[in-house]
Amino acid sequence: MSDDIIIIGSGFAARQLVKSLRQRDKDVTIRLIAADSADEYNKPDLSHVFSQRLSADDLTRVVADEFAAQNGVLLHKNTQVISISPDRHTVTTANGVFPYGKLVLALGAEAVVPDVEGAEQMITLNSQQAYRQSQATLQKAAHIVLAGGGLIGTELAMDLNRAGKKVTMIDRASHLLSSLMPPEISARLQQHLLQAGVDMYLNSNLLAVKKHENALEVELDGERVIRCDAVVCAVGLKPNIALAAAAGLETRRGIVVDVCLATSNPDIFALGDCAEMEGKLLHWLQPARLAAMSLARTLTGERVSLMLPAMLIKIKTPDCPFQLAGDTGSKDLLWQMQVNQQGLVAKGYSASGALTAFVVSEDQMKQAFPLLKQLGTPAPDTQS
Amino acid sequence: MSDDIIIIGSGFAARQLVKSLRQRDKDVTIRLIAADSADEYNKPDLSHVFSQRLSADDLTRVVADEFAAQNGVLLHKNTQVISISPDRHTVTTANGVFPYGKLVLALGAEAVVPDVEGAEQMITLNSQQAYRQSQATLQKAAHIVLAGGGLIGTELAMDLNRAGKKVTMIDRASHLLSSLMPPEISARLQQHLLQAGVDMYLNSNLLAVKKHENALEVELDGERVIRCDAVVCAVGLKPNIALAAAAGLETRRGIVVDVCLATSNPDIFALGDCAEMEGKLLHWLQPARLAAMSLARTLTGERVSLMLPAMLIKIKTPDCPFQLAGDTGSKDLLWQMQVNQQGLVAKGYSASGALTAFVVSEDQMKQAFPLLKQLGTPAPDTQS
Repeated sequence: MSDDIIIIGSGFAARQLVKSLRQRDKDVTIRLIAADSADEYNKPDLSHVFSQRLSADDLTRVVADEFAAQNGVLLHKNTQVISISPDRHTVTTANGVFPYGKLVLALGAEAVVPDVEGAEQMITLNSQQAYRQSQATLQKAAHIVLAGGGLIGTELAMDLNRAGKKVTMIDRASHLLSSLMPPEISARLQQHLLQAGVDMYLNSNLLAVKKHENALEVELDGERVIRCDAVVCAVGLKPNIALAAAAGLETRRGIVVDVCLATSNPDIFALGDCAEMEGKLLHWLQPARLAAMSLARTLTGERVSLMLPAMLIKIKTPDCPFQLAGDTGSKDLLWQMQVNQQGLVAKGYSASGALTAFVVSEDQMKQAFPLLKQLGTPAPDTQS
Repeated sequence: MSDDIIIIGSGFAARQLVKSLRQRDKDVTIRLIAADSADEYNKPDLSHVFSQRLSADDLTRVVADEFAAQNGVLLHKNTQVISISPDRHTVTTANGVFPYGKLVLALGAEAVVPDVEGAEQMITLNSQQAYRQSQATLQKAAHIVLAGGGLIGTELAMDLNRAGKKVTMIDRASHLLSSLMPPEISARLQQHLLQAGVDMYLNSNLLAVKKHENALEVELDGERVIRCDAVVCAVGLKPNIALAAAAGLETRRGIVVDVCLATSNPDIFALGDCAEMEGKLLHWLQPARLAAMSLARTLTGERVSLMLPAMLIKIKTPDCPFQLAGDTGSKDLLWQMQVNQQGLVAKGYSASGALTAFVVSEDQMKQAFPLLKQLGTPAPDTQS
């Protein structure tokens, strides 16, 4: 059997894994297979390409061949993987069949697009490539409808607004960031966006996108129609699980992994946006970085459990930035908030009185790290 | 000179004054001049006429003649006052000229209607009479646009929604109840209304109301058009000051009165929605009641200063009721909030650390009276 490590994917998680592996083992064969150009770009930069007038090419940090040379990687870019055979320990691609000892799936996630008439008119912005395809359209567009008021949606809304676009947001929920926090907290960002001129249709369903003369018409329930130049869809991400499922690996929302990042096959691992551990998806950059470090040790002989500390999530909305951590989306918390013109601090306490979540904004973001250390501890005084 | 007391107006304030006067003096001549039927109705009932299916006539509590007989009042109903002569101590009406010793202006306030094309299409609901004129239209209407997201607007929105109407709210501000509280607090009610199916166009200006076939079209800035069956305007109230101004009395937003409720003419007084004391309008029922009691003593020989305690304002939105008091609209407060599924408590502290405002909702409304007593006291601990 081959000793080769094959990594499928070239995003942040894959790249971190290569670097961590090379720190531990200069010699093992690493084969990296990517469906795209495999150039390195910083994905969070996609949240400010419009206001900073960056083209897709501007985002490239390291071209793929350079990365491969630096890290001693056998690179197969623009190479679609057709199938995985766990029994034969092979990966079949359009450019050949490759044997592996250990296989790592870093397949990422793709943007969800609702199944409505005209869905093909909707632009997604979940990768450099997706942005490359749509940048000309978006640069020309004066009025952009943005489906989705979650983290990516609000970041894009503010960025497009700052770039001088008219932005109209649509969300099925009745407040922005509805899966991340209660309405009393996201109200602050909602207010900022509205005052900046963003329109919002909340508690609204997008039914269709139709071409009409040189414009698009977005149809909502309640017989409402919004005419615009482009529609961006940021309603959510779904992990890329098809390849794993076809190979017989266990999948739920993501590719199911244990605490060592092993899938249901002991020689196949998954990390990054495609992986699901203990019922939770492992998206965000910090889990991917920690998972890559942990997995590098496992692949080089130790068997290491991934321990994820409480992690800070940043909402990159520069005129009203937020940071949060913990179980902020829970409906059962008692929130203690301090609010003034300079910012807010919201602390979420569980029924037992433990601090299990917090959100801070603007000038109060300096409290994020101290609060992160307090997560899990009892409230000093919940009676104020 | 006559000893008669003339009261112009027949609303809550006028009626309270008559009762308070009669408790102190059974004999003084009281002449009450009203432009309308002068029937007694409970104005806050206008906030639930739709869901409770009440007609304008259902609101009548005591017909005017009965009230006049009970209280020994000379009643001139449906009588327009043409002018006041402070020098001659007379009130001139379409039905005669009446001398007074003391004159009380209880002229109320009228609904503000924006100066836009089609303003005459807008319905106001600030009196039984206004409701009587529009009730047939509103009962038939399936979709009602409601301009104004303040206290009256939100009450009406919930009431119309509960009555099965489609409601679309428009407000120039970026959150509901914007003059009463910050967005973090009103977010809760906003969320309730959105989830109940109310649409909202915030940070939006109404430009015109146009007839189109059998419907109305409301035009907003940003080339947005809402088709509906009726438009209700609840953007605010303006004190009725024209009569006072024409008589040379000092007016600003309201008719200016001193702490004894005397206008700039010592024999003319004002109270209720038309009066302004120390820069503040005296609307709401409780100030009117206290002002009436105070003024009755002044008019019968004592000279009494009106002392207004902190007063509770109730937002009558039964699915998500609020109560508040103090300087809740100030932008400079530090708000301490406790929020869970059952309700919210928000306490507003001034820069000096004194509790100067609070808002409570739903199950937390039991805290309203204890908090009312604490207004003005320092925070127990603002560091939590």
